[in-house]
Amino acid sequence: MKAVRLHSYHAQPVVEEVPEPAIRGPLDVIVKVGGAGVCRTDLHIIEEQWASRSGVTLPYTLGHENAGWVAEVGSAVTNVTVDDTVILHPTPTCGLCRACRAGQDMHCSDSSFPGIDSEGGMAEYLLTSARACVKLDPSTRPQDVAALADAGITAYHAVRKAIPLLYPGTTCVVIGAGGLGHIGIQCLDALTATRIIVVDRNADALKLAEQLGAHHTVVADGNHVDSVLQLTDGQGAEVVLDFVAEQGAQHDGFAMTRRNGSHFIIGYGSNLDIPTIDVISTERNVVGNLVGTYNDLAELMVLAQAGKVTLHTRTYPLADALDALADLDAGRVRGRAILVP
Amino acid sequence: MKAVRLHSYHAQPVVEEVPEPAIRGPLDVIVKVGGAGVCRTDLHIIEEQWASRSGVTLPYTLGHENAGWVAEVGSAVTNVTVDDTVILHPTPTCGLCRACRAGQDMHCSDSSFPGIDSEGGMAEYLLTSARACVKLDPSTRPQDVAALADAGITAYHAVRKAIPLLYPGTTCVVIGAGGLGHIGIQCLDALTATRIIVVDRNADALKLAEQLGAHHTVVADGNHVDSVLQLTDGQGAEVVLDFVAEQGAQHDGFAMTRRNGSHFIIGYGSNLDIPTIDVISTERNVVGNLVGTYNDLAELMVLAQAGKVTLHTRTYPLADALDALADLDAGRVRGRAILVP
Amino acid sequence: MKAVRLHSYHAQPVVEEVPEPAIRGPLDVIVKVGGAGVCRTDLHIIEEQWASRSGVTLPYTLGHENAGWVAEVGSAVTNVTVDDTVILHPTPTCGLCRACRAGQDMHCSDSSFPGIDSEGGMAEYLLTSARACVKLDPSTRPQDVAALADAGITAYHAVRKAIPLLYPGTTCVVIGAGGLGHIGIQCLDALTATRIIVVDRNADALKLAEQLGAHHTVVADGNHVDSVLQLTDGQGAEVVLDFVAEQGAQHDGFAMTRRNGSHFIIGYGSNLDIPTIDVISTERNVVGNLVGTYNDLAELMVLAQAGKVTLHTRTYPLADALDALADLDAGRVRGRAILVP
Amino acid sequence: MKAVRLHSYHAQPVVEEVPEPAIRGPLDVIVKVGGAGVCRTDLHIIEEQWASRSGVTLPYTLGHENAGWVAEVGSAVTNVTVDDTVILHPTPTCGLCRACRAGQDMHCSDSSFPGIDSEGGMAEYLLTSARACVKLDPSTRPQDVAALADAGITAYHAVRKAIPLLYPGTTCVVIGAGGLGHIGIQCLDALTATRIIVVDRNADALKLAEQLGAHHTVVADGNHVDSVLQLTDGQGAEVVLDFVAEQGAQHDGFAMTRRNGSHFIIGYGSNLDIPTIDVISTERNVVGNLVGTYNDLAELMVLAQAGKVTLHTRTYPLADALDALADLDAGRVRGRAILVP
Repeated sequence: MKAVRLHSYHAQPVVEEVPEPAIRGPLDVIVKVGGAGVCRTDLHIIEEQWASRSGVTLPYTLGHENAGWVAEVGSAVTNVTVDDTVILHPTPTCGLCRACRAGQDMHCSDSSFPGIDSEGGMAEYLLTSARACVKLDPSTRPQDVAALADAGITAYHAVRKAIPLLYPGTTCVVIGAGGLGHIGIQCLDALTATRIIVVDRNADALKLAEQLGAHHTVVADGNHVDSVLQLTDGQGAEVVLDFVAEQGAQHDGFAMTRRNGSHFIIGYGSNLDIPTIDVISTERNVVGNLVGTYNDLAELMVLAQAGKVTLHTRTYPLADALDALADLDAGRVRGRAILVP
Repeated sequence: MKAVRLHSYHAQPVVEEVPEPAIRGPLDVIVKVGGAGVCRTDLHIIEEQWASRSGVTLPYTLGHENAGWVAEVGSAVTNVTVDDTVILHPTPTCGLCRACRAGQDMHCSDSSFPGIDSEGGMAEYLLTSARACVKLDPSTRPQDVAALADAGITAYHAVRKAIPLLYPGTTCVVIGAGGLGHIGIQCLDALTATRIIVVDRNADALKLAEQLGAHHTVVADGNHVDSVLQLTDGQGAEVVLDFVAEQGAQHDGFAMTRRNGSHFIIGYGSNLDIPTIDVISTERNVVGNLVGTYNDLAELMVLAQAGKVTLHTRTYPLADALDALADLDAGRVRGRAILVP
Repeated sequence: MKAVRLHSYHAQPVVEEVPEPAIRGPLDVIVKVGGAGVCRTDLHIIEEQWASRSGVTLPYTLGHENAGWVAEVGSAVTNVTVDDTVILHPTPTCGLCRACRAGQDMHCSDSSFPGIDSEGGMAEYLLTSARACVKLDPSTRPQDVAALADAGITAYHAVRKAIPLLYPGTTCVVIGAGGLGHIGIQCLDALTATRIIVVDRNADALKLAEQLGAHHTVVADGNHVDSVLQLTDGQGAEVVLDFVAEQGAQHDGFAMTRRNGSHFIIGYGSNLDIPTIDVISTERNVVGNLVGTYNDLAELMVLAQAGKVTLHTRTYPLADALDALADLDAGRVRGRAILVP
Repeated sequence: MKAVRLHSYHAQPVVEEVPEPAIRGPLDVIVKVGGAGVCRTDLHIIEEQWASRSGVTLPYTLGHENAGWVAEVGSAVTNVTVDDTVILHPTPTCGLCRACRAGQDMHCSDSSFPGIDSEGGMAEYLLTSARACVKLDPSTRPQDVAALADAGITAYHAVRKAIPLLYPGTTCVVIGAGGLGHIGIQCLDALTATRIIVVDRNADALKLAEQLGAHHTVVADGNHVDSVLQLTDGQGAEVVLDFVAEQGAQHDGFAMTRRNGSHFIIGYGSNLDIPTIDVISTERNVVGNLVGTYNDLAELMVLAQAGKVTLHTRTYPLADALDALADLDAGRVRGRAILVP
């Protein structure tokens, strides 16, 4: 089958032929990929940011955002059968550790993360597990929902954690209205009555943000911290959802966070460097965010099926994966790029 | 009256005569000070760390940790009368803003912080307000409890926020077993069944920590991060209460924090500089902490009166304030230094 | 001034002349009433349900739901001045007890409840306190918002408590789409993405419910419990907001509550009689609800000003109070009846 | 093998020979029973209280509280092996439904409850599943810990839910210091600093309660509601843990619950009949409780291994099961009765 594989860091991946995956354990599931999202994390993997953290051996197949159809199942799989349409939670989990038993799938002590630390889903077939499958209405087109598998679940997870902080009268700043951010805005609109301010460098992204529920948009032109402070009586926002968190955005995000507020780090790439006296004198929090739980993904599919979250995507044939990566890197993608094998 | 006043930054304060405070508003209360705690924040004020944040005009009287007896009350005060024994919440508040109406006293939009941004309590008398007074049993000696007014409430507030994270089977690391830390250990012991690991540079402080409930102690000798990781199966602790957060402790604290765990910043003084990829790939949180609520202080007094929190203090006459500050700076104080006017 | 006064239980109140209230304490506020809501509780007071609980002495003035203009203030009032437009939290509170310091206004240990246990607001003037006043935009017409002061805050408070239970994919049943219920539906729609099923005896009320955001409506015709179970795969709803809780509705509400779900009692009037084995074998909860906090009311005003909660009211001159009570009792009021002095 | 089997309601069970269970599915586990607790629920089953709720077909084997050693495992079991010492969560669960994925094991949509709705563990062998097994230190004697599998987990689960309500200065009433209650008292003592008042009819039970951490004990002699009110300034307790909830205790429990407090129903057997006006005018809650989660059981084992929860048990040979049931019914058991096959 065809797959998008990384052979060395700081070099382009290669679209090449590899053997199809095979069932190895009783709970394994092989999915015929219908859509594979292209994510800024793929760029960061190529930049070697994940090498020491994932410990993956090159070459391997990229892709951690997938939906498709079940192609084959292990002997003990009961929740899906061949031909079911499914979207995949990014981390196949053990189901037995403390984290799994508490519903914290992404903190499983015995999981893998295909596309990060093992063979991923920018390919025709992907090996995953029963516990990763969320069954969908058979009429769903996988390429239309694939972006919910990682961009969607991550944005939803952060918004869901922020809900108790976002009662009426509060403000939430969204930094970055791209692949994750444009979903986050819709989740905020569906689940809270907070005032939404969106910050982005790109005028088209801000236009989209307005259509999706933003109450105010601010161009990231260097004065954007001041603009947000002016919109919030000089106080900043109760919650800042920072979908960028690199190249200075992380410091802007902290500066836009109000006393007793929370700065959610969702994007990444640079260091956050803050005086501890500022952390304590205002009692601000910095909140980590990683993907989301299986139930987060299931809940998000409810929002999507109700039309409350719609995706803005641009599809590419699998063979054009390098174009998709280049477009993402250059800021030419509105919403999310999706490879279709 | 005598007061400990700061005339210029980076210079020693002076013990000198100033006029006694006078009642100005209907809810004012003047307290005859029975005990005034000496805090690392006083050192940081002298170092000019607070100058731009507090906006205070020099000279002014230091001291933000007090207990004493009511000396005079404004016309509308109903909750205390002259001669009542009281411990003082550090921030007299308005009682009308959103934060006050939600019980978040330290985020009042119209409060002062005596000793930080206005005349403090290292003096014979202190001007405060009705809302800051917690009435005590008349037999209480103010100098015995004064350290609960700031060191105590701050440690208690952080522990109380951490309780939901500290179920049986978890580990909590306490960095720094000094004025705040030695109270924090006792609060952890009273309110949770977590395993407590205490890290400090000083062997005597660690001995005290053991007596107060620590299950393990670790000397901060350069290998302490590894030692904590070894005690936690290489995972780190669910919660790190960082009562130091300067001179490198802040980075040790983050490194000791487990995946999905929380690093509570309580001390301060240096910058925290962390890769955002580490924040998101492990979903760790950095949690700000500032003093505590009025109800926090009232709850802590319940623990103190039940003998569950006992203070280790060393008293100095008010005139010897400079000796107390010097002893604190040199690490010669076990527990808390208290000035007695 | 004119006031609606109850002289004896099980008899009609009387509209009669009484002296205007006078300022007694430094934090008192006298409000010229612009609108006074008529509530089922007024009927229950007349039925003597509250006599032993409130301990009020007859005769007294009814009315616990008011908005208007400040007419006079005590010497220590700082948050409002004469002619300010205000809506009133129902319970003037002390501001000093544990409950007040935790933001739980309705559990103040030293409050009154005008219209329940002291002189109420179905009158030209009402005596309240500074802490009860929420300042409004001067252009607001008090009669247009008065219903938010009790019906609104109570519905909002219950919905706000239910938010964590109402993630996407859940169902919330609203029993009773009257004065409180029609506001509750809008709050659910603004603050959650839950599926809303509304049950009422009255077809017009159900029509209104649909316009306000109900996804399904069910006529309370005797088969309504079965209808709700059919709409929820035989499981019942995660949350039932029971705005009636009398004449059998309370048992229907419990029967419609799903395993691990919560039955919110908001209306009242009859006994709830349930087998404890049903409580434990399904781990269901029965949740009490009483008015709401000051901040609840402030948040609700944000929703109202954003047009997310609109009131359906019918106004009567103060002199026609008995007609309004009769219309309410007979089920002839859609939304809320408001007296305008 | 020998088993304690119920052939008809309102009649004594019979100790008789039945075939040993056999592995049927890949995740099945057969446990050689080392201890089987005797519970008031066994009496309620005999009384036919559970017949319509469980739908079980007679005859069947009683027993829902077990620890022992793994005797045989299905082909896909990875977390335990033959001869492991284990304590069993009462409900083997599917691991795939929403409740399982949220850690709410007892609300699994596809689980069984051996001893309630299927063959139980008052027998030499018990069929359960991999997900129900908590692995123990091999030196643990199952008969010493079996009572934690149901009495323990249930008491722990209720206490854990109550922790946020039980800050210093609060009171918790424990009704019933028997099999569950004597564990609940120790959990309260380990996890909170609340004041504990224990109510029981039996003087010996109250003596045990004092040794385990009760601050006050009250004989249930008819004046006990008044006694509790006197101990709480006439207010009642923030939390009442009602381990009886039958024969009037359920109404005493509600009456002892403070304004804004919560009455936890844990025992059962009679109806709770309360005026809805009392529910709303005080905003009290009635909280259902059912067993607990897998993680609850794991946490409780941590407390037990740390010596913070110790069991008071009386053992009987399996053949003497009827004596154990009779002793329990007559109030002759302090702590918990355990059958040892």
